[in-house]
Amino acid sequence: MSGKRIGVGLIGTGFMGRAHTLGFSIAQRSFTLPFELDLAVIADATLPAAEAARRNFGFRKATDDWKSLLTDPEIDVIDITTPNLLHREMALAAIAHGKHVYCEKPLAPTVDECAELVAATEKAGVITQVGFNYLKNPLLSLAKDLIDSGEIGRVTSVRGIHAEDFMADPTVPFGWRLDPLSGGGALADIGSHIIASFRHLVGPISSVLAETVTLVKERPVARGASEMRPVEIDDITRAFVRFESGATGSFEANWCATGRKMQHDFEIYGTKGAIVFSQERMNEIRLFRAGEDIRTRGFTTIWAGPEHPPYGAFCVAAGHHLGFNELKAIEAHEFLNAIATGKRPATDFREGYEVQKVVSACYASARSSSWITIA
Amino acid sequence: MSGKRIGVGLIGTGFMGRAHTLGFSIAQRSFTLPFELDLAVIADATLPAAEAARRNFGFRKATDDWKSLLTDPEIDVIDITTPNLLHREMALAAIAHGKHVYCEKPLAPTVDECAELVAATEKAGVITQVGFNYLKNPLLSLAKDLIDSGEIGRVTSVRGIHAEDFMADPTVPFGWRLDPLSGGGALADIGSHIIASFRHLVGPISSVLAETVTLVKERPVARGASEMRPVEIDDITRAFVRFESGATGSFEANWCATGRKMQHDFEIYGTKGAIVFSQERMNEIRLFRAGEDIRTRGFTTIWAGPEHPPYGAFCVAAGHHLGFNELKAIEAHEFLNAIATGKRPATDFREGYEVQKVVSACYASARSSSWITIA
Amino acid sequence: MSGKRIGVGLIGTGFMGRAHTLGFSIAQRSFTLPFELDLAVIADATLPAAEAARRNFGFRKATDDWKSLLTDPEIDVIDITTPNLLHREMALAAIAHGKHVYCEKPLAPTVDECAELVAATEKAGVITQVGFNYLKNPLLSLAKDLIDSGEIGRVTSVRGIHAEDFMADPTVPFGWRLDPLSGGGALADIGSHIIASFRHLVGPISSVLAETVTLVKERPVARGASEMRPVEIDDITRAFVRFESGATGSFEANWCATGRKMQHDFEIYGTKGAIVFSQERMNEIRLFRAGEDIRTRGFTTIWAGPEHPPYGAFCVAAGHHLGFNELKAIEAHEFLNAIATGKRPATDFREGYEVQKVVSACYASARSSSWITIA
Amino acid sequence: MSGKRIGVGLIGTGFMGRAHTLGFSIAQRSFTLPFELDLAVIADATLPAAEAARRNFGFRKATDDWKSLLTDPEIDVIDITTPNLLHREMALAAIAHGKHVYCEKPLAPTVDECAELVAATEKAGVITQVGFNYLKNPLLSLAKDLIDSGEIGRVTSVRGIHAEDFMADPTVPFGWRLDPLSGGGALADIGSHIIASFRHLVGPISSVLAETVTLVKERPVARGASEMRPVEIDDITRAFVRFESGATGSFEANWCATGRKMQHDFEIYGTKGAIVFSQERMNEIRLFRAGEDIRTRGFTTIWAGPEHPPYGAFCVAAGHHLGFNELKAIEAHEFLNAIATGKRPATDFREGYEVQKVVSACYASARSSSWITIA
Repeated sequence: MSGKRIGVGLIGTGFMGRAHTLGFSIAQRSFTLPFELDLAVIADATLPAAEAARRNFGFRKATDDWKSLLTDPEIDVIDITTPNLLHREMALAAIAHGKHVYCEKPLAPTVDECAELVAATEKAGVITQVGFNYLKNPLLSLAKDLIDSGEIGRVTSVRGIHAEDFMADPTVPFGWRLDPLSGGGALADIGSHIIASFRHLVGPISSVLAETVTLVKERPVARGASEMRPVEIDDITRAFVRFESGATGSFEANWCATGRKMQHDFEIYGTKGAIVFSQERMNEIRLFRAGEDIRTRGFTTIWAGPEHPPYGAFCVAAGHHLGFNELKAIEAHEFLNAIATGKRPATDFREGYEVQKVVSACYASARSSSWITIA
Repeated sequence: MSGKRIGVGLIGTGFMGRAHTLGFSIAQRSFTLPFELDLAVIADATLPAAEAARRNFGFRKATDDWKSLLTDPEIDVIDITTPNLLHREMALAAIAHGKHVYCEKPLAPTVDECAELVAATEKAGVITQVGFNYLKNPLLSLAKDLIDSGEIGRVTSVRGIHAEDFMADPTVPFGWRLDPLSGGGALADIGSHIIASFRHLVGPISSVLAETVTLVKERPVARGASEMRPVEIDDITRAFVRFESGATGSFEANWCATGRKMQHDFEIYGTKGAIVFSQERMNEIRLFRAGEDIRTRGFTTIWAGPEHPPYGAFCVAAGHHLGFNELKAIEAHEFLNAIATGKRPATDFREGYEVQKVVSACYASARSSSWITIA
Repeated sequence: MSGKRIGVGLIGTGFMGRAHTLGFSIAQRSFTLPFELDLAVIADATLPAAEAARRNFGFRKATDDWKSLLTDPEIDVIDITTPNLLHREMALAAIAHGKHVYCEKPLAPTVDECAELVAATEKAGVITQVGFNYLKNPLLSLAKDLIDSGEIGRVTSVRGIHAEDFMADPTVPFGWRLDPLSGGGALADIGSHIIASFRHLVGPISSVLAETVTLVKERPVARGASEMRPVEIDDITRAFVRFESGATGSFEANWCATGRKMQHDFEIYGTKGAIVFSQERMNEIRLFRAGEDIRTRGFTTIWAGPEHPPYGAFCVAAGHHLGFNELKAIEAHEFLNAIATGKRPATDFREGYEVQKVVSACYASARSSSWITIA
Repeated sequence: MSGKRIGVGLIGTGFMGRAHTLGFSIAQRSFTLPFELDLAVIADATLPAAEAARRNFGFRKATDDWKSLLTDPEIDVIDITTPNLLHREMALAAIAHGKHVYCEKPLAPTVDECAELVAATEKAGVITQVGFNYLKNPLLSLAKDLIDSGEIGRVTSVRGIHAEDFMADPTVPFGWRLDPLSGGGALADIGSHIIASFRHLVGPISSVLAETVTLVKERPVARGASEMRPVEIDDITRAFVRFESGATGSFEANWCATGRKMQHDFEIYGTKGAIVFSQERMNEIRLFRAGEDIRTRGFTTIWAGPEHPPYGAFCVAAGHHLGFNELKAIEAHEFLNAIATGKRPATDFREGYEVQKVVSACYASARSSSWITIA
């Protein structure tokens, strides 16, 4: 790191490349960052693509050689938003060169590979962050505070889902999301988010019993192609989960849920209350408290506002709504703070590894139709 | 049956006794019944209780001897709303005396006992009805029509819950709901409703994988008592289900879901659409159709109205709301029509038996942690 | 009145005739009524219609001569559910014969005629009830209790609407609802309900400033007819209102609100809280309390349950939903209790008169485009 | 303008200063802007404040002399986010120096002053933009398209509200929002937003009948002060409106609506459908179409997605949610495009003037209790 300045090298210029750029840019203008942020270099597979993104996203330099970032003294952070298959190699290289790493999930398709990444990270003493953006919602922080302070009592049961419908159409062609080598499958791709929410709010998961379903058994090899390729991964995974705390629950990951765009929903029941959330309405959360006057008790819908930090960094007035890009800004801010303080963020590579252990346990459970204990 | 008149003997004067009486009374004034309905005799454990209910509910006679109904020539229908433990004996006796039987669920705690009831019923040629009242909602009939006519395509996945919170408080004493002998347990008691909804809308269930949880391990033997009795049944049951149609899904039964009063909710996803329902808002249902203009598609909230029979029998104007008691009226009406036509209603004892098979399979699955096939 | 028995003579067998019958029947089986209820005689314009309704609704006798009820010693209560134009004459005759009167709104098209009815009633000492059924919702009683006990502070502002869409289609023919002689117009017909809700919850209205709109200027004289008749009454009325308490507000009555079935909605803001209600979800109400912890405050959705009397009379379990017909049962019960105790019910003819004064003031205000004070 | 580069000078570093900065920054990274954007100079009352904001917001230079921007050749756009009282003077000066102007609403407290601004603008040939951010919601563009294409038929009636509660507490001290000289009052401050939405979607307003209410008659001169200052402006304004199209409607502006944070809500009814929107859930809109099958029709909840431009610029996946800051980005983008093409944006100073005419007409109407025609 060069004094109070921090240099970022971003790899990937697609959906997540833009989202990370917006995250950094919004964070820069909303928080007092611990560093002077330098969006230094952006890398993509071709120079024209990288150059176009450089201009659009506001980076200083463009390159078609991501490896050049590794030895660039102006780069402190390598930010990986490439297709899943490339995450592991890039992250390992970045760590090996002493760079801090911000990486979209999943880190790698297997638990062992994730463990390798964690070991490398911890050996190198670098700070990492994984893109579990939904956890950064100020209302989830509120939920966590309420649960941790006993507001809903001891958590007894949990129910969650992460459902979208972008794979419901059987003419959607085979792609990296469907490739087991890139960690494909609805559970690995989107179900990891609901596992992360469960862990964030209710704590470690000790065992799972799961089933997987492949709804679309084969897909065209390319859009409109007549040649078909068999699909081996899950369109739906359902799991029962047991938490170390004694709580139990279930979740579903489903990317063929016709009509759903972002159903990242959960219900958490405790002995004294309950919390219900839907990402479809991410600026509100519902809280039930059993202790209140029976005539007037019910679920209270709480709108996000400055009383739910760091909402106020983006907008001083309640009810104005944060969006997805602010979640990325909070994620980026947390990462930069972690680098400044040397304290690992809650969703670093170790957390990515812990989530991957649950993902893998679910797949193992589905193969054996038996409860799998998570070490 | 005595000409066009039909005589009803009701056993039980509690919550469900009143609900059945309201059901019959509302049905009588809303439909053109196939019979002149005679609310003839009401039976309870003591004569004062029976007599009080007689006056309140509008029956002609009261008795403390339910067996007297069996041989009463004025009685064509025996309606059983007593505690679960008594259902089987009363129903068998009624059938043996050639009476039609309307009985609250569950029929009996074991599959064999339910099978015995079905066999007796079919041998005697009497008509039966079980209290799966939620299925009688005109909006569930709409949902069934839409699914059966292919409006949402082939059903791919289902998610359901029946959650309430009346057992969440650990000081609620041990009672018949907790006694395995009376078919106790959250699954048997309330989960059977969501199984019934699944079967009604998506068809027969072929196998299950379930787990059960006992949250409150012991309860006072009576309200306020210091002596405790261990609880052996489930407070929560979760199950994965596979349907004969190939659809898969999951459900939960939970009577400790703090804050929930009547969360009988389901989501049904098909290849071309989806249907979402919550009993918490029983006068509305949501429909998604994938084929529509992408700019304006979404879940359409449909309010119950006369266009959803038999809503119009109760109210000619849309949006005025039916309540729980109208569901009972529809149930009673369907039962009387079945008697008149000799055609079994959809929710007769055989359906009660089929639901019980799923309940029992879930309990067996939870004990063995393995998939159980339903014969 | 004949001892503890009370005899009812019902005039009219349509939508409201059935609703009143259901109301009485449900009340009878849900409450401990102060009388033995005798549904004695039902009257309609023709004997076959009356006789058919007698059988269906469960009355003892049928007649085509409503005047025969006036002198029938078995009749204590005359219940008027005929077209609006007939209300006044029938009610006056009933009162003159010392009968208690239950009458659908509006009592009469003019304030003077309503005053005449009130005077006759009070002179005769009979008990009356008007069909402001929405006020009977247990959740509106909760709202009233909360407001009266200061839970939301001093009421500062109110916003209400009663919108449906049954007149939106311009081919709906001219009928009694459109005839000024029968008190026609959206305000008189449905707007009176929101005025009643305002008065019930916030108190007397002291002045209004209103406008009326006729959207469909002429309608066919009969369904499908080519001959058209000009429409002189309002399809929409909007009004600003000032309450005696100092609160101010507004409401709209609109029977051409495409898509609305029963939008009887209001928002009541006070210095310390707010209450929001929609008849579209009549089993829930929302309460905001400013005093609570800022992090967790919001609108609490309260589901109707036994803790909101008299919900428990119909169903011992929360969340099971009351419907429109239970509102009528509560209305009937309140009326019978009033007869037994001699205490006027909250929605007697005097209340009908007070509401009519507001209706008339709105029409006068719209003609003059000026504030009208209500005496 | 200096070639393809455009230089921005921002005056004001508070809530709106940050929001504009975020708007520009997000726009820069989400759209292909017609200019290379140069966030050149930021001005505030003191140099330390300006310098702190410069660092935080990412501007190149800071100044405490806003007038220096007027003659700065690097500045093409002056962006005014100062207290209302200063808008007019600054905008006039900017226009006089040939700068394009982006200004928060209101432009000026009187119609004449707004007219003066429009005249100056049009004489100078500069492009202007006013901060009617809510109109920039992609779902409002969808609503406008649906209305303009006749999807809901001819608009018959409209109902709107803009309510918040930031002035409900009577201890909130007197400030510029309450000063008539700075255009104070709930109508001018927040009601202008709902007027803008009405104009955007339903067209010009031809006349109004309004009333104003001052709930809190005096406020402390400063926070915690015992000295009180009388309040002369409106806490609530309600208005009936008539549109040039023949549609009629009403709206309310209320900044004492306890519990409301951002209730910018409207319902638009047409002869063939309806549209309902609430800013409290700004990522969804509801559409009713009368022509559909009666059994399945209802309000369809449409979630924002890439099919609603320019949502896709910020996020390629539906359901991820835009927030307030993206509305500002769309506003900024539209402004820059207007400068590039020379075509006035929909919400330029002329639109601000038109809105102010409605605001002023409402205040005049409230004083005279009569309909006021808008020239």
